[in-house]
Amino acid sequence: MSLQPHHDGSATYVPEQEPRLGLTVPVFVRVPAGADVRQVHVRTTGDGEPHFAEATVDRTEGGDVWWRADVEVRNPVSNYRFMLSGAKGYRWLNAAGLVDHDVPDNGDFKLVSHAPPPAWARDAVIYQIFPDRFARSAAADGRTAPDWAIPCDWDTPVIGRGPETPYQFYGGDLDGITAKLDHLDRLGVNTVYLTPIFPARSNHRYDAASFDTVDPLLGGDAALARLADAVRARGWRLLGDITSNHTGDAHEWFTTAVSDVHAPERELYYFDLAGGDYESWNGVKSLPKLNWGSAELRRRFATAEDSLLRRWLRPPYGLDGWRVDVANMTGRRGADAYTHEVARLLREVVAETRADGLLLAEHGHDHTGDLDRDGWHGTMNYVGFTDPVWSWLRHGDDPVPNFLGTPGGVRRRDAGAVLATMNTYRSLISWRSYVHSWQLLGSHDSARIRTVVGDAARQEVAAGLLATMPGTPVVFAGDELGLTGTNGEGSRTPMPWHRPESWDRRTFDAYRSLLALRRGEPPLRHGGLRWVHADADTLVFLREAPTGTVLVLARRAAGSPVRLAGLPAGENVYGGAPALRPDADGTVALPADGPTFQVWRLG
Amino acid sequence: MSLQPHHDGSATYVPEQEPRLGLTVPVFVRVPAGADVRQVHVRTTGDGEPHFAEATVDRTEGGDVWWRADVEVRNPVSNYRFMLSGAKGYRWLNAAGLVDHDVPDNGDFKLVSHAPPPAWARDAVIYQIFPDRFARSAAADGRTAPDWAIPCDWDTPVIGRGPETPYQFYGGDLDGITAKLDHLDRLGVNTVYLTPIFPARSNHRYDAASFDTVDPLLGGDAALARLADAVRARGWRLLGDITSNHTGDAHEWFTTAVSDVHAPERELYYFDLAGGDYESWNGVKSLPKLNWGSAELRRRFATAEDSLLRRWLRPPYGLDGWRVDVANMTGRRGADAYTHEVARLLREVVAETRADGLLLAEHGHDHTGDLDRDGWHGTMNYVGFTDPVWSWLRHGDDPVPNFLGTPGGVRRRDAGAVLATMNTYRSLISWRSYVHSWQLLGSHDSARIRTVVGDAARQEVAAGLLATMPGTPVVFAGDELGLTGTNGEGSRTPMPWHRPESWDRRTFDAYRSLLALRRGEPPLRHGGLRWVHADADTLVFLREAPTGTVLVLARRAAGSPVRLAGLPAGENVYGGAPALRPDADGTVALPADGPTFQVWRLG
Repeated sequence: MSLQPHHDGSATYVPEQEPRLGLTVPVFVRVPAGADVRQVHVRTTGDGEPHFAEATVDRTEGGDVWWRADVEVRNPVSNYRFMLSGAKGYRWLNAAGLVDHDVPDNGDFKLVSHAPPPAWARDAVIYQIFPDRFARSAAADGRTAPDWAIPCDWDTPVIGRGPETPYQFYGGDLDGITAKLDHLDRLGVNTVYLTPIFPARSNHRYDAASFDTVDPLLGGDAALARLADAVRARGWRLLGDITSNHTGDAHEWFTTAVSDVHAPERELYYFDLAGGDYESWNGVKSLPKLNWGSAELRRRFATAEDSLLRRWLRPPYGLDGWRVDVANMTGRRGADAYTHEVARLLREVVAETRADGLLLAEHGHDHTGDLDRDGWHGTMNYVGFTDPVWSWLRHGDDPVPNFLGTPGGVRRRDAGAVLATMNTYRSLISWRSYVHSWQLLGSHDSARIRTVVGDAARQEVAAGLLATMPGTPVVFAGDELGLTGTNGEGSRTPMPWHRPESWDRRTFDAYRSLLALRRGEPPLRHGGLRWVHADADTLVFLREAPTGTVLVLARRAAGSPVRLAGLPAGENVYGGAPALRPDADGTVALPADGPTFQVWRLG
Repeated sequence: MSLQPHHDGSATYVPEQEPRLGLTVPVFVRVPAGADVRQVHVRTTGDGEPHFAEATVDRTEGGDVWWRADVEVRNPVSNYRFMLSGAKGYRWLNAAGLVDHDVPDNGDFKLVSHAPPPAWARDAVIYQIFPDRFARSAAADGRTAPDWAIPCDWDTPVIGRGPETPYQFYGGDLDGITAKLDHLDRLGVNTVYLTPIFPARSNHRYDAASFDTVDPLLGGDAALARLADAVRARGWRLLGDITSNHTGDAHEWFTTAVSDVHAPERELYYFDLAGGDYESWNGVKSLPKLNWGSAELRRRFATAEDSLLRRWLRPPYGLDGWRVDVANMTGRRGADAYTHEVARLLREVVAETRADGLLLAEHGHDHTGDLDRDGWHGTMNYVGFTDPVWSWLRHGDDPVPNFLGTPGGVRRRDAGAVLATMNTYRSLISWRSYVHSWQLLGSHDSARIRTVVGDAARQEVAAGLLATMPGTPVVFAGDELGLTGTNGEGSRTPMPWHRPESWDRRTFDAYRSLLALRRGEPPLRHGGLRWVHADADTLVFLREAPTGTVLVLARRAAGSPVRLAGLPAGENVYGGAPALRPDADGTVALPADGPTFQVWRLG
């Protein structure tokens, strides 16, 4: 196959990565030799009206013609697309791809003039820790389990579904994490993300009883300060997890609201005017839903000088940002639609409190309508990464539940369908929001990747995509050891520190090498994304940056070799395949064995 | 080919056509025999979280299995889609179609709980009149042409592009229209839409100099009252045209604002703080842009008791609603994004003033983001109807400019691409907004359909689609006589009342018969839309309603006959083809000649 005309939001194509409102910025389209393109226009829709402007040839380079067009950053989000005219008429090139018929603007490229996410987020590799299950410090032995807890030994099997599920208490704590940072260093991550650490009445702590202190069961405020210091000392970042959609029913706000209908806390929730019933997360009464129509809630949560959002971003804790739990439901209830206001407010407050703070939204399904709005910097990209990767690499015929609760679970699909899904979600948001979204192979809310794909060889392919595609890689603690789990709760397995013989060393080494590769090859962190091939079992793409180009091959099974035209020679930098050398006919052949994951540095 | 599982927002599938917030309503999916469907779920995303519920078999009818699911109208716009599970896994069915991979929610079906558009709009057939060019009353001879005008005889050729274009003045007036309503009656329309009638300094009057009186050149306020009475006497409706994006620079608001920087009118526009420069429509200085950030503008335009929006909806004029000019730009400028607020405000005021008032937005490109928001009842569907029909039926190789100003104009495309475009735009809005949008074959802003398609036979195919697809048909005055015009301004041709020999009688008869067919066959007005076939030259679809089903065949050229399985017998009700009778193998053969347009009533 041959290469297609291409543009994306990366610096190769959009040199101005922080376009400000009112500026006019150049954008470039690469048109490979042989494409039927004689003229290029850029179409914009500033202030709601389409305008066309002719592009000009900027240069010809290695057989590619580079066209340049100027786009005015007329609105906070400014759409553009290209019209490629040739002998056979015109085609549109927008973020959804190259199409032969007229399409709506939702798939257009987008320039976003809002302040960009913090620079460090571009290079972040995140390690997600569920504190109750990661590691116990010596101090943990001295603590008494609370009334709600079912104390468990570190080796007690996790019950993935049942009445005990939220109450199995393993007693991991923050000093336990601090003591294990060398493991993270060996793996190669640079950002620690903790699921909630506030007092609660469950092991997951998404039912906060307070936002004012760190749970004493985790070591309290001082332990958080110690962990933050240790993380900072390594030059890393630390992220918290905040529940903006609900609190626990043991929260001091809620208990006050329940006991006194005249209390100022009453308006923070959705109480029935008549009875004492209240809205809760998916009908779970222990998780009363917050009402963002309340000015008092906005004050306490965000705007007040001592708000919970600000407090933990400041010394001595100095969290580098928040992952926002259930951001998808936050502010949504019936006719109430405060979500975008809340996102904007939280971002404003985070930015005021620390200029380099990150605000990342949980979203388990279609997040595209909630991004690019001066709110969330990015999202958890389950739908545009996790689900498609799972459906491509899943093994066996047992049902694999996905995060969404889709009946029947994850369906097996070929690469074409997987790529269509990835592309569609990507095309609906700006490049910036795409690359700042988290890509995960799983989390505390899902099955584990190892269980989904079945073996180390396929897990390596999954981890390869995690490490080489755009987006912020997130490793759920334990995945790197080959841990298993069939659903979210069942995946919250204690880390087998004391059983090193059980660790899957091959998997750990693969993760470690892949993350090192990402660090070592800037195009993997900052490059564009150009797909060059997909068949049922194979995905091939380029990451292109001004600093170089990398070619990635992912195969889930052996098959026939893929031949690609128009590529230069390249050295293998991951996977052990031979170097790429164009044959006499100018094509290169990629390995046909599988499962395999291979990366070459080109040119 | 065989029929596919289907759902749309029409009453066959959604019996509750006015779903109110908080209700749970049944929705139905039709699954033809032989489709691989064993189980059906409905997926909703109430309050931002996906939920799945199992559908049940409601009945089996004529080989189709009808599944029923219940959907809560949880939010003002409530999304839903179906998951069809079978031996080969599951597929999604949403408004974008039946797909084999995961797709975002933007193509989901939508229940809208906002108050519906007025009932009369469902059956409206609109006749668009550009007053200067439609008809002159005797009184017109007595009027003196204004200073800006270039007086023209009725036979003077229209100059489509040039300095004289906006000033050629033919002197048509409102009493002239009143005198010609019998022509409209013969044609079979029931709603008159007038482009602007306020005083201005151009023949198109989109540069209003006042909103307080009807232009005396058109006969003044009294002539409008006479026309309104005459229209009402026939049981018809009358629509006006309002410029919410800008006024003319001769407008009393603007001249006051220019002459006095302290005048209250100053804030109605976008003046530079320093110089006296101001924002205008696409840089045309005679059209200063209105600033909807101004409370005073909202008051004068909309909320005041004597606002212009209200005044003309009341007796003795009693307009039945407004077409809103340049709605796509209204309220948009740089960081200002008031569009949705303005739409909501105007709709609220229209509804307060007359409960059955219509508010229809001009939008020449992707309108989908501006609908379903409690604002515009619908839009001018150039992108989802006009452009695709043009690109399918256009003739010759001369450039045909489209409304959007796409360089190179309208590209010739086959039916598959045309259908993909129509479907994409439709899928992004609710069924209600789709059927209440205007479908046009052209307007005062575009070339005329006859010029685009080249002959009467192809114009009949175009008019057939206009009369049989969902949406409100709009006929631009003169199209029914086969008038021509190569661009918007050039299409504003005086009606050749005095040259009946020049009328294309075949075209008039086709329009007349097609509109009568639409009146006589309720499925054409209220039915769903199920595509059953598309090849390069052929489009075939069903309109299904509880009252019956109609099959439509449109061919742009002769070809091989299309054979369809699963259809009952049917009587031809337009086009003269034989009745449909299933052959021994259960299929029916559709005519292979073309261009042709044929309609059968089935069952």
